[in-house]
Amino acid sequence: MATTLSGIFPALVTPFQKGKLSLSGLKSNIKKLNRFDFTGYVVLGSTGEGILMDEREGLQAIETVRAAAAPGKIVIAGTGSESSAGTIEFSNKAAQAGADYSLVVTPFYYKAQMTAAALEAYYREVAEKSKIPIILYTVPKFTGLELPLQTIAAMATHPNVIGLKDSSGNVSAISETLRACPPEFCVFQGHGSILFSALLLGAKGGILALSNMAPAETVEIYKLFQAGDYEKAREMQFRLLPFNQKIVGGYGVPGIKCAVDMLGYSGGDPRPPLRPVNQEARDAIRQILKNGGLL
Amino acid sequence: MATTLSGIFPALVTPFQKGKLSLSGLKSNIKKLNRFDFTGYVVLGSTGEGILMDEREGLQAIETVRAAAAPGKIVIAGTGSESSAGTIEFSNKAAQAGADYSLVVTPFYYKAQMTAAALEAYYREVAEKSKIPIILYTVPKFTGLELPLQTIAAMATHPNVIGLKDSSGNVSAISETLRACPPEFCVFQGHGSILFSALLLGAKGGILALSNMAPAETVEIYKLFQAGDYEKAREMQFRLLPFNQKIVGGYGVPGIKCAVDMLGYSGGDPRPPLRPVNQEARDAIRQILKNGGLL
Amino acid sequence: MATTLSGIFPALVTPFQKGKLSLSGLKSNIKKLNRFDFTGYVVLGSTGEGILMDEREGLQAIETVRAAAAPGKIVIAGTGSESSAGTIEFSNKAAQAGADYSLVVTPFYYKAQMTAAALEAYYREVAEKSKIPIILYTVPKFTGLELPLQTIAAMATHPNVIGLKDSSGNVSAISETLRACPPEFCVFQGHGSILFSALLLGAKGGILALSNMAPAETVEIYKLFQAGDYEKAREMQFRLLPFNQKIVGGYGVPGIKCAVDMLGYSGGDPRPPLRPVNQEARDAIRQILKNGGLL
Amino acid sequence: MATTLSGIFPALVTPFQKGKLSLSGLKSNIKKLNRFDFTGYVVLGSTGEGILMDEREGLQAIETVRAAAAPGKIVIAGTGSESSAGTIEFSNKAAQAGADYSLVVTPFYYKAQMTAAALEAYYREVAEKSKIPIILYTVPKFTGLELPLQTIAAMATHPNVIGLKDSSGNVSAISETLRACPPEFCVFQGHGSILFSALLLGAKGGILALSNMAPAETVEIYKLFQAGDYEKAREMQFRLLPFNQKIVGGYGVPGIKCAVDMLGYSGGDPRPPLRPVNQEARDAIRQILKNGGLL
Repeated sequence: MATTLSGIFPALVTPFQKGKLSLSGLKSNIKKLNRFDFTGYVVLGSTGEGILMDEREGLQAIETVRAAAAPGKIVIAGTGSESSAGTIEFSNKAAQAGADYSLVVTPFYYKAQMTAAALEAYYREVAEKSKIPIILYTVPKFTGLELPLQTIAAMATHPNVIGLKDSSGNVSAISETLRACPPEFCVFQGHGSILFSALLLGAKGGILALSNMAPAETVEIYKLFQAGDYEKAREMQFRLLPFNQKIVGGYGVPGIKCAVDMLGYSGGDPRPPLRPVNQEARDAIRQILKNGGLL
Repeated sequence: MATTLSGIFPALVTPFQKGKLSLSGLKSNIKKLNRFDFTGYVVLGSTGEGILMDEREGLQAIETVRAAAAPGKIVIAGTGSESSAGTIEFSNKAAQAGADYSLVVTPFYYKAQMTAAALEAYYREVAEKSKIPIILYTVPKFTGLELPLQTIAAMATHPNVIGLKDSSGNVSAISETLRACPPEFCVFQGHGSILFSALLLGAKGGILALSNMAPAETVEIYKLFQAGDYEKAREMQFRLLPFNQKIVGGYGVPGIKCAVDMLGYSGGDPRPPLRPVNQEARDAIRQILKNGGLL
Repeated sequence: MATTLSGIFPALVTPFQKGKLSLSGLKSNIKKLNRFDFTGYVVLGSTGEGILMDEREGLQAIETVRAAAAPGKIVIAGTGSESSAGTIEFSNKAAQAGADYSLVVTPFYYKAQMTAAALEAYYREVAEKSKIPIILYTVPKFTGLELPLQTIAAMATHPNVIGLKDSSGNVSAISETLRACPPEFCVFQGHGSILFSALLLGAKGGILALSNMAPAETVEIYKLFQAGDYEKAREMQFRLLPFNQKIVGGYGVPGIKCAVDMLGYSGGDPRPPLRPVNQEARDAIRQILKNGGLL
Repeated sequence: MATTLSGIFPALVTPFQKGKLSLSGLKSNIKKLNRFDFTGYVVLGSTGEGILMDEREGLQAIETVRAAAAPGKIVIAGTGSESSAGTIEFSNKAAQAGADYSLVVTPFYYKAQMTAAALEAYYREVAEKSKIPIILYTVPKFTGLELPLQTIAAMATHPNVIGLKDSSGNVSAISETLRACPPEFCVFQGHGSILFSALLLGAKGGILALSNMAPAETVEIYKLFQAGDYEKAREMQFRLLPFNQKIVGGYGVPGIKCAVDMLGYSGGDPRPPLRPVNQEARDAIRQILKNGGLL
């Protein structure tokens, strides 16, 4: 691992208009987000509905983010799919489209067969055939699968694996990971409610849906942490809890997109089978944003 | 619903050779399976590794099964994906390739948002835009999601929805479904260990991974049931339990493919990230097949 | 195993009045239930709030049921607790109080340590030290623990183990049990929605919360099954589904007690921390009973 | 809440000899533990096998700990049982036996009925009738039940509720609790792997099985935290991870007792149905203790 990444990345929402990918909306979002001290952007993650887009759309989204991102920003693309071959192929296309790293979720349909050894073999093959370095990605709330410590530890020293996005929310497991992996292995926290805790344990930063809604605040937690001002960092983390718990956790992607719209970014409707939040939820989201001082 | 389907369908394995789709293997399997009294075939289901194949391969597989199937056999294709648009598009391509029905698994990545209402909206849209009738499909062991009774009941009267493949293994839920839906709604049992029970409750038949290994025996359960010979049907069901529990349930698709190879069909290796069973498992599978009289 | 049990047993509710055990209510219930063809009664089961009663109350309840039960009725007492010594001691006191068999739930607080081997050792010790034969009892919805097939099979031939109450609702597992155990081993179905299915697979009968509400109907399913009238048995089972799913499953013990009160038996309030159902639930329960013809 | 508790408490193991409660072993353990800066002791918790002891034994254990504890040490007794009446009665007997506080686990057998409102009513009744202040206790790995934030927040201001032992391991939930409750509400961390994280979020201390094995080290984490030496606190926490994950989490109470014996305390065999660890586990435990420098 030549490079080490750190800091905060938004797990970008992908705006659609009348069902079509809105490249202008995406570009406009990036232009606005460029003014925050994000290390870079994650496109086509779980929050980005990457799994609901076809290959051509995905590559367009990567190109658009790459082109709109301020100089020096890192672009990470979600490229994982169920098949090894599909993941490798798309990772390499993503590289050509401008991605610096690919974020590779655990395959999970055939859960019972996804043993530590099978996941290691999967990540090894992807790492060896991907032209850009990869970041492991575990998100049990979507996949129903946990990435075993043994697999993470085995892959942490692979030259083409730069880190892990851990969205398990399991601080005990994250502690074990940080203890087991070399210090340069980049663990990113993916659950917005525990960014502060993860940083104090040694995580390098966060890749967060929450950063779509609270860009300044999530960056601020990181800066306060770096400055050693843990008390203020904790306060800011506590202030963000309701956004993460109620909007990201409660309403999911449709809720995040609704909030993003209210905050002046381009969110738009999610793709079916996801459905826009209803009026009651919109009202609740507005209230949550207001109560927390984001609106 | 003009038609009513009944009887047994194998949920076909898809043979690969050196990683490539083996159309000759698939054709040869169908030719051999044609001699059993299957109502038809299911291609690209969970057992068929449909989720690990690209669109072109999927359509080739459908065409091959259609061409090789004996006259009068029904061809059902697994066409569900995470996005509504993707499912509709592939269902219509599958129709052109020769599928009579499409089998549409619940979308499941964004589980928390897949409420009864969202799933109903999803299936309604797919049913209305699919040129061939659809069969709902729930398989919680892979999806981590249950299809609510309310959604099934709402869709059961839709003119382009012919039935449900229920692989939940939950007999209480299946009973509720059979009670709530009109008698012509075709409930197929997807869990090979409870075919007998489901038939006695009113299921129209089974769509079974187990039928790859025990074609004659699974058809026999259906015939014994039809003849009212419940005692013999139950005996046959009990005889098949170890194959289903240990091979289908325990070793999964790689184990089924190994067994199928041993039994003279073309199985081949599964696609990565699935991995072939190891030697120890091969020996165990051979023993299970021998103990149960299939080998 | 000298004896073989069969038929239907209600898992009795225990009436309380102003928080105190109502022996008169219990006696009155038994007198009314005696007119149905139950094989006997189960007292102090999960439905009976045995876990909320002290030892003295428990023994009084057993004595009362024994005394009120018509001649020839079998009395089974729930005697399982977390500790082996406690279970053995209370089983023997229950025997003195008039119980013919004790129903022994899996210990479950220390779930992770309750391996197949540990559960086998537990049941072996209890069986050897209990003066009356025992019935194994698995009810994962309360215990969060499954009783492994291996343990059941190992204990099925023990001379002081007469059978199993299976409330898992898992028909695949029940099938495996029936296949693995000798034919005289008495498997009782504990989930009221799958009595019909379990009987057809070889279960000897049922121990059912549902029988408090639908005594005649649950006995009727058994009689229709014995007479080979499977179609009518299935119809009756379907008719009972809403009672079991909505009242037993949905409202739990407080709902069952409410229904029992409406039907002319003595239910009374559940013991805290269980709380009586609220007015809305009462109305719903009344409607369910009316819709299904029980009221 | 008049008092505020803080610091580290061991969740004591209870020594048995030939199945009998060893009061001398317990006394000897306390005498040895008195030299560490524990705030006090928790007796009859999950680690203490309280659920496997009868009332008389439990009261003897409390009296023994009270008598052996150095002056000024706080004694907390686990007093929760399934029934409200049982919990209240035993809490008051525990008070007479010398307990300063009672630790009250969520009732959990009738999980589906243990709603936020039911749990609030339960804790309210116990708090009002208990002569000593109570500490709420949630431990989902044993109970299969989570204590909702809403219930915790409602009880946090009750004058006879002093705090919460949270063994959920869920740092996101703990953060929500700390945010929602008044600052004087005493949140104790019950999962030894996340003590450091919990302290940094505002927890007042820990009640830890791990402290039986690593008394000095767990106290040291607390002191380093208080001194603001977060880096060293984190290092110590990381050093303790294997003990907690492999012994407390992996081998459970029997493993903790084995380790405690090796470390010169009195552990003894667990009570059936718990079984002593086998030789292979003993060897592994010895190695873990040696590798981590505890032995």
